[in-house]
Amino acid sequence: MAKDFSTREENYSKWYNDIVQRAGLAENSAVRGCMVIKPYGYAIWEKMQAALDKKFKDTGHSNAYFPIFIPKSFFSKEAAHVEGFAKECAVVTHYRLKNDPDGKGIVVDEDAKLEEELIIRPTSETIIWDTYRNWVQSYRDLPILLNQWANVVRWEMRTRMFLRTTEFLWQEGHTAHATELEAIEETERMLDVYADFAENFMAIPVLKGTKSVNERFAGAVETYCIEALMQDGKALQAGTSHFLGQNFAKAFDVKFASPEGKLEYVWATSWGVSTRLVGALIMAHSDDHGLVVPPKLAPYQVVIVPIYKNVEQQNMVVEKAREIKDRLEKKGISVKLDDRDTYKPGWKFNEYEFKGVPVRIAIGPRDVENDTVEVARRDTLEKEIFQVADIENKVEHLLEAIQSNLYQKALAFREQSTYKADTWEEFVDILDNKGGFILAHWDGTAETEQKIKEETKATIRLIPLNVQHEEGKCIYSGNPSSFRVVFARAY
Amino acid sequence: MAKDFSTREENYSKWYNDIVQRAGLAENSAVRGCMVIKPYGYAIWEKMQAALDKKFKDTGHSNAYFPIFIPKSFFSKEAAHVEGFAKECAVVTHYRLKNDPDGKGIVVDEDAKLEEELIIRPTSETIIWDTYRNWVQSYRDLPILLNQWANVVRWEMRTRMFLRTTEFLWQEGHTAHATELEAIEETERMLDVYADFAENFMAIPVLKGTKSVNERFAGAVETYCIEALMQDGKALQAGTSHFLGQNFAKAFDVKFASPEGKLEYVWATSWGVSTRLVGALIMAHSDDHGLVVPPKLAPYQVVIVPIYKNVEQQNMVVEKAREIKDRLEKKGISVKLDDRDTYKPGWKFNEYEFKGVPVRIAIGPRDVENDTVEVARRDTLEKEIFQVADIENKVEHLLEAIQSNLYQKALAFREQSTYKADTWEEFVDILDNKGGFILAHWDGTAETEQKIKEETKATIRLIPLNVQHEEGKCIYSGNPSSFRVVFARAY
Repeated sequence: MAKDFSTREENYSKWYNDIVQRAGLAENSAVRGCMVIKPYGYAIWEKMQAALDKKFKDTGHSNAYFPIFIPKSFFSKEAAHVEGFAKECAVVTHYRLKNDPDGKGIVVDEDAKLEEELIIRPTSETIIWDTYRNWVQSYRDLPILLNQWANVVRWEMRTRMFLRTTEFLWQEGHTAHATELEAIEETERMLDVYADFAENFMAIPVLKGTKSVNERFAGAVETYCIEALMQDGKALQAGTSHFLGQNFAKAFDVKFASPEGKLEYVWATSWGVSTRLVGALIMAHSDDHGLVVPPKLAPYQVVIVPIYKNVEQQNMVVEKAREIKDRLEKKGISVKLDDRDTYKPGWKFNEYEFKGVPVRIAIGPRDVENDTVEVARRDTLEKEIFQVADIENKVEHLLEAIQSNLYQKALAFREQSTYKADTWEEFVDILDNKGGFILAHWDGTAETEQKIKEETKATIRLIPLNVQHEEGKCIYSGNPSSFRVVFARAY
Repeated sequence: MAKDFSTREENYSKWYNDIVQRAGLAENSAVRGCMVIKPYGYAIWEKMQAALDKKFKDTGHSNAYFPIFIPKSFFSKEAAHVEGFAKECAVVTHYRLKNDPDGKGIVVDEDAKLEEELIIRPTSETIIWDTYRNWVQSYRDLPILLNQWANVVRWEMRTRMFLRTTEFLWQEGHTAHATELEAIEETERMLDVYADFAENFMAIPVLKGTKSVNERFAGAVETYCIEALMQDGKALQAGTSHFLGQNFAKAFDVKFASPEGKLEYVWATSWGVSTRLVGALIMAHSDDHGLVVPPKLAPYQVVIVPIYKNVEQQNMVVEKAREIKDRLEKKGISVKLDDRDTYKPGWKFNEYEFKGVPVRIAIGPRDVENDTVEVARRDTLEKEIFQVADIENKVEHLLEAIQSNLYQKALAFREQSTYKADTWEEFVDILDNKGGFILAHWDGTAETEQKIKEETKATIRLIPLNVQHEEGKCIYSGNPSSFRVVFARAY
């Protein structure tokens, strides 16, 4: 463990930042609130992209690309949307610079002022629905099932790498349907895709539900979400899927002729996840030894470190290491062989432990003689001697075991950290002393939710899907309630 | 052939636009100069990305991501760069909108003016080298071999879909090296990667060379490029790789300690290709029947169209079509089975011919009886009857033959369209009446090059690598010259 590295206990927030920076995931840039995603961090994002992209295509979606610029007037067309998104955003007002007449560098050319300002997209519903208007005439043009991988900008006042940055990378799905039912099914299907990805790739259990009105996407009829629990007991929204009703079709006049020849407004959904997921991944699994990455999203699943004292040993050991690398790669396992002579094995052990590589294989001269290797797993830090014969199957099983163990550990943590609260005192006590998800009764009003938020910083994370009916009283107002919702403090 | 579709002969420019729009590749957006890349066009770009990304990784590069915003002052740091790039660009001056006090929509909030304007990246050398300063201390931190997939913005006055748009998608490699030699080797290696991609994936032969000073990248010591010839005899720059010397290291103060302990400036390269390549692909191969896509970049390589008259036939034919689809897919061939009942076979034939799908398989009830299918290849429009037995190997070979034929055809065209000119009259005659590449002597001065450009619109496309020495006289000035360079009018 690095001495100058915070533990979770000492300072959870610093622990997170230390991991992001020291594991080479990202760093702050010269531009306020924007980060540089470094190669190791970007490699995790690429793994996420590949897995999600496959799921989107398997569910019938295609990728496309829409302009980064949105004319200012587009935002005013959907009343709720403009309130939610048009405020804190980057505004392009000019299209040219010129040499400063005083000779001091370059200045904005005031002659090159745009007639209408352009907004850097904070999300693309408006420009996409403006485009869909020309794509849809008849029911035969529907559904449209598109996704876009893109950068977006939201001018955030307080930023944290991956979790909340001014510019971030994401995907945004935008679909158009002939019927309300079909659009709702799509919204729920994509929520399931996200939940499946979170659980089976990120090894993070998630709750599925819908947002309260206060937390709903600006312009949506219903926002579905998945919520994960971080190790400090705070919740993190890991993905949202919105049923937009006919709101954007009405705002942008997108109609279709039904089979019966009637003109009807199109039904819409949108859904997205972002580089925020990398932040969730870090906070869900990492420990006081550094980053822990689940095998399915690891930039490399195995690192091999050769150990030797002289050139003769080096040749022998590195040759064996290459053979093992080849055999693992033939199994589809990604392997980094670090045979650099400029760093010592001890340094490499620390480095890859900190970077959360799932499996480390160390191989020295005696190992070559015995046809063995030393295998260390990152999740439990346990070491074991493996025979080289059949190494590929053993490592494959080990990677599966690590993936499964990380999920089970996160699930157990969430279960331990999920409470029922029936009184206000209980509710506040759990928030202040334990953290986690709190199942509590709520009277269903935005006003109560707002007051709870003001007094405790806790919000309704979701109203569970298939909620269990249970008569009770709102923990805040005491008014009657017929089911529990999930509260937490959140990122 | 669609009746309302221009031929190349009639109107080459309209022919190009018709293909882009009618094949569903892209369309103009509501934002001036920006296009919407539609799913079919984006699928070609995704195929390009996948092939290039693999090549970049195979040559040791990793992906990363840097902010889209560049502080204005960064541009002033490299003298040539600012002249080339800081002029026509999108400038962010504010970070907030507010409700119009007069109740008319939303307006820019003048209280939210940025202290320093931000430029939307037209290219990322400046922000990246500002970052590299903190990454490099010693020779052990080198080389840095990074690539970024990103959107960039250049405020173009005249735009054409794919070929020149205000916003476009690209990749930009940015590498840092300890020695000049290593940086030059990298520059040339990436030029070879681009040439290999152009020839083996896009089926487009390219010339490799360096740019004259006039055409050099702003901030580069040497710009290498690949140039392709379009069917109208105009050249298209299909990729550039720049040796940047120590220019950006000096501008951003990026130094490293050599093994001998001396502080030295870092050597740099950058290289990029963009969505412009989709435009090149269209113009190189397509014909008066529509788009033609080489099999290696086709969104789907084979389309299967079932033909039937009643439900009984439909069931039988579609079942057989599914079997063929499965067998082809097992071979790694991408297949679309269009079993939609809402469109007739004739409509589908036209549609996929226009979209340039390399191979079309039609299957009717008699085919099922005979265990045959009708196979049409898009490049020659020839049809043939294939036995279903062994269909996967036959189609695989056919796809290879199409890929190869497209390349050979483009190569033959380029060879026919490459001329030597020894007098000004010859030179102008070829430009006006034939088009193509012209090998001609040039006196080596920027002034002559500029005059030739003003009088003929032709530019020096490149100075060939491994140029053949040959004494001659400049076609314009008559001054002595020792080798020929390649002129053309260009996109």
